[in-house]
Amino acid sequence: MVIDKTKKHLVANLEALERIFHRPDSDQSRMVLTKYMEQILFGLHDFLRENVGITEEISLKELASRFTSSEIAQRPAKTLTDVISEIIEEIAPHAVNVSSPYFVGHMTSAIPFFMVHLNTIVTALNQNPVKLETSKVVSVYERQVLAKVHRLLFRFNDDFYDTHVQKPESTLGSFVEDGTLANLSALWVARNRLFPSTSAYAGVEQDGLAAAMQTRGVRRVRVLVSELCHYSIRKASGVLGIGNSAVIPIAVDRNNRMDIHTLRNTLEELRRDPETAVLAVIGIAGTTETGSVDPLCAISDLCREHGIHFHVDAAWGGPVLLSQQYAGLLDGIERADSVTIDGHKQFYLPMSNGMVFFRDPNAMDAVAYHANYINRPGSVDLGIRSLVGSRSATSMVLGSALDIMGSGGYALLIDHGIDTARAFAKEIRRRKDFELVTAPELNILTYRLVPEQWRTPAALTGSADAVTCSDVVNRINVRLQRLQREAGNSFVSRTTLRRTGCPETVVLRAVIMNPRTTPDILRSILDEQEAIFQERIAPTLPREP
Amino acid sequence: MVIDKTKKHLVANLEALERIFHRPDSDQSRMVLTKYMEQILFGLHDFLRENVGITEEISLKELASRFTSSEIAQRPAKTLTDVISEIIEEIAPHAVNVSSPYFVGHMTSAIPFFMVHLNTIVTALNQNPVKLETSKVVSVYERQVLAKVHRLLFRFNDDFYDTHVQKPESTLGSFVEDGTLANLSALWVARNRLFPSTSAYAGVEQDGLAAAMQTRGVRRVRVLVSELCHYSIRKASGVLGIGNSAVIPIAVDRNNRMDIHTLRNTLEELRRDPETAVLAVIGIAGTTETGSVDPLCAISDLCREHGIHFHVDAAWGGPVLLSQQYAGLLDGIERADSVTIDGHKQFYLPMSNGMVFFRDPNAMDAVAYHANYINRPGSVDLGIRSLVGSRSATSMVLGSALDIMGSGGYALLIDHGIDTARAFAKEIRRRKDFELVTAPELNILTYRLVPEQWRTPAALTGSADAVTCSDVVNRINVRLQRLQREAGNSFVSRTTLRRTGCPETVVLRAVIMNPRTTPDILRSILDEQEAIFQERIAPTLPREP
Repeated sequence: MVIDKTKKHLVANLEALERIFHRPDSDQSRMVLTKYMEQILFGLHDFLRENVGITEEISLKELASRFTSSEIAQRPAKTLTDVISEIIEEIAPHAVNVSSPYFVGHMTSAIPFFMVHLNTIVTALNQNPVKLETSKVVSVYERQVLAKVHRLLFRFNDDFYDTHVQKPESTLGSFVEDGTLANLSALWVARNRLFPSTSAYAGVEQDGLAAAMQTRGVRRVRVLVSELCHYSIRKASGVLGIGNSAVIPIAVDRNNRMDIHTLRNTLEELRRDPETAVLAVIGIAGTTETGSVDPLCAISDLCREHGIHFHVDAAWGGPVLLSQQYAGLLDGIERADSVTIDGHKQFYLPMSNGMVFFRDPNAMDAVAYHANYINRPGSVDLGIRSLVGSRSATSMVLGSALDIMGSGGYALLIDHGIDTARAFAKEIRRRKDFELVTAPELNILTYRLVPEQWRTPAALTGSADAVTCSDVVNRINVRLQRLQREAGNSFVSRTTLRRTGCPETVVLRAVIMNPRTTPDILRSILDEQEAIFQERIAPTLPREP
Repeated sequence: MVIDKTKKHLVANLEALERIFHRPDSDQSRMVLTKYMEQILFGLHDFLRENVGITEEISLKELASRFTSSEIAQRPAKTLTDVISEIIEEIAPHAVNVSSPYFVGHMTSAIPFFMVHLNTIVTALNQNPVKLETSKVVSVYERQVLAKVHRLLFRFNDDFYDTHVQKPESTLGSFVEDGTLANLSALWVARNRLFPSTSAYAGVEQDGLAAAMQTRGVRRVRVLVSELCHYSIRKASGVLGIGNSAVIPIAVDRNNRMDIHTLRNTLEELRRDPETAVLAVIGIAGTTETGSVDPLCAISDLCREHGIHFHVDAAWGGPVLLSQQYAGLLDGIERADSVTIDGHKQFYLPMSNGMVFFRDPNAMDAVAYHANYINRPGSVDLGIRSLVGSRSATSMVLGSALDIMGSGGYALLIDHGIDTARAFAKEIRRRKDFELVTAPELNILTYRLVPEQWRTPAALTGSADAVTCSDVVNRINVRLQRLQREAGNSFVSRTTLRRTGCPETVVLRAVIMNPRTTPDILRSILDEQEAIFQERIAPTLPREP
């Protein structure tokens, strides 16, 4: 870190170390710090400007072979300048340009440049909202940000928020690393409220799940959720001890929304079994694969009828509520008991930011923890009711972004995404070699390339020929996605839709969340796919089914 | 975000939005971005330079009253400049200056300035290491960083790391938000390995804990850990469904280390009960309250004898291994099955960064999850074996910091902390009004102010007078810590030590991790405490016990 000119190598010494813990006082050192920042902001620029997704110029194997050293050098090996240059020249070119308008495959996208500045503020302040003594104003600031998003979701009146926004005993929500942990938090609370303490025992959190189930005479716990749910629901059930098999996938209708008749029947059936307890029904506001929104009002009705916790996984769709035009798509979300939202998705925050919200400001009492040195009973420490302990003050990024963008600014992004996805769907329908598999309800759609000779005539559905066709088409699309990704000009993702009553279908998946992604760009992505198919895939196929 | 001069207010429009998603091309816009960054880096400077902890100039109540708005404005309310100025002028002055050398109360401290630059790079690249398609090189880079820390802990040979560092099927560790989630991850893996699938059932993750325990004929699961453990151990047990009551606190010896005889006896006793299964024994390398290190070698011997998972919570102490002088204090950590480390503690990373490591590169297979759209079986996606899904690429900060600091640079920080804590202990012992309660094994110590007339003579121990004395002294120290904190010149934390065989003791807690914290500063903190006691507390006390 310091160049010892007599020895010609870097050495660490305490005096130099103390210096790097100081803020720079001289103009000279300030200039150096600014220069580094410029290098970062603009040195990465070339990488971030190019229309490149994930190239295969260098194979992953070759790339991996460059990162095999497992020794920590004793002496400082690099200066900050070395590190920055190396990242710009050797790392960034092999990272994924998620900010390219041609990158429309995942829920990771471009972020407004000011997010970089806001996150830098958070880093420089380095507050830890786990407790007041390491965050102070940031704790009360965070409570306000949580109230704003809570209100967007649940729409209680002024009185409600005046009462709860800064009341230490109330918890409107909690920041966690991502949607997976938000879903885990919600189901954790629901589990503990399903098995509260009684005069006979101290509750599931204290005495464990086996004792809880035995005391209640329950042999099976169930979580009901659309078969298109995110895998974090299974994971959360595994973590919480109820097991993956507790998750009962409910079939979707032809619009990929939870089939409400199936849900009703399943609930009726489960109700007849006194040894089964339903922990939660989960509605999804924006499924990961298709962007579909479950019928939240109808699910809520059933949950209230059966007295079951209603969780909404709105990790993707939540911010659609900011759009006057499309908020109605999420009707019923205000009736949820808990809601998951990801800030790094449609709030366009940097990686990563998850949030969970609860209708009842006392719901998180079911997961309260205290310690001797912080989070003492009665304190306002935010760490009392939270899955996580130490964490970064990302509320400052979200709060500032809401101020800078306004709901109006976010609405423009949301509307652009949905409108562009719909235009893209039209274009796909127009092209004879493509089939739109799931139309965009929000800003996600899936489609596939189906050459005419491999299209299954309706009459053949279910036949051996049809199965062959389906296999071939699936393989075409796996290959197509890979070849396009490797070419590095653009990127769509692929998934395999597994829905009750439908054949397993490999699809290409487009997620439109970059305001720079235009219909023209999307057309060029289809053009490229047609070309890849004609040049690289068609010649390798058998002539006919 | 854009000022419409005819309307005199901010409006959001799509053209402006597209612009903020672009990287700046013109010199003019580059200058503006740099200017913002300068404002952030140096505008926060005054705040970060002052020796102020948590002042009470403004009460928390008054502060909270400023953050009660729960509406998201439709129109953009502020420009980036407004936001930055407001944070510098109105937020930062009421945040906590954790970077002050006078802030020695918590495990949150100053960070080297280059960490701000490194985190800015991570934000600008915005990679998501959950999957290769949104991180590519960062995934293989992260594997290398994990291998480096794994090697620091477990010290396997070159062959081992050559084999596993980039082998997709191997998982040496995992980044999570913090130590709480790292401990949770470790116990999650241990739980699943305790109840694996058999021919009769599919394992605890799949079939749930009740079924797992029943199949195994187990009625009680136990986790053994020192009574000084972090509260995240109880929380993890609660989350995982085994319950807080599964955590058996093992008494500590007079050095605040787990008493190995008590552990041995407890294990023997539990072994005699066929219906009890021990999920893990946890050793602590740096307890939160006292910085003590449990006898890791002896615990490891007992774990191997009993065939029990041995987890080490080294959230605090792990990086001490970088110091040639003090690494020996952690002897035995290399025999752990899993280890927790917090990057934002003694690796001096910005908030927040937790890590969990496993001796067995296949241990995390017990918690593998796949999905249709990512993390497909056989892929190199890091999200397959991880508690969390989307997350930020903090491995780039840690990896770069290791390059810039070298183990030698970190060793200087570690050594400074331990040496300074020892010097501080000497100073406390030298002053007649102070009592050193727990001597620093690492860089944490606890002490209290005990005025001579409230000291309990040994002869009186246990008497009613002694209890009165003890109460008064506890109250003195609660007040002392609060008054010092409110004065805002310096900050030590307080905790209540609850140890078997000792009276409940309120202590002041000092955590020395800032290289700018000198013995002189620590002396002035004691001086201030003496003055506060004489001026503010002594006059309010009764004359004698």
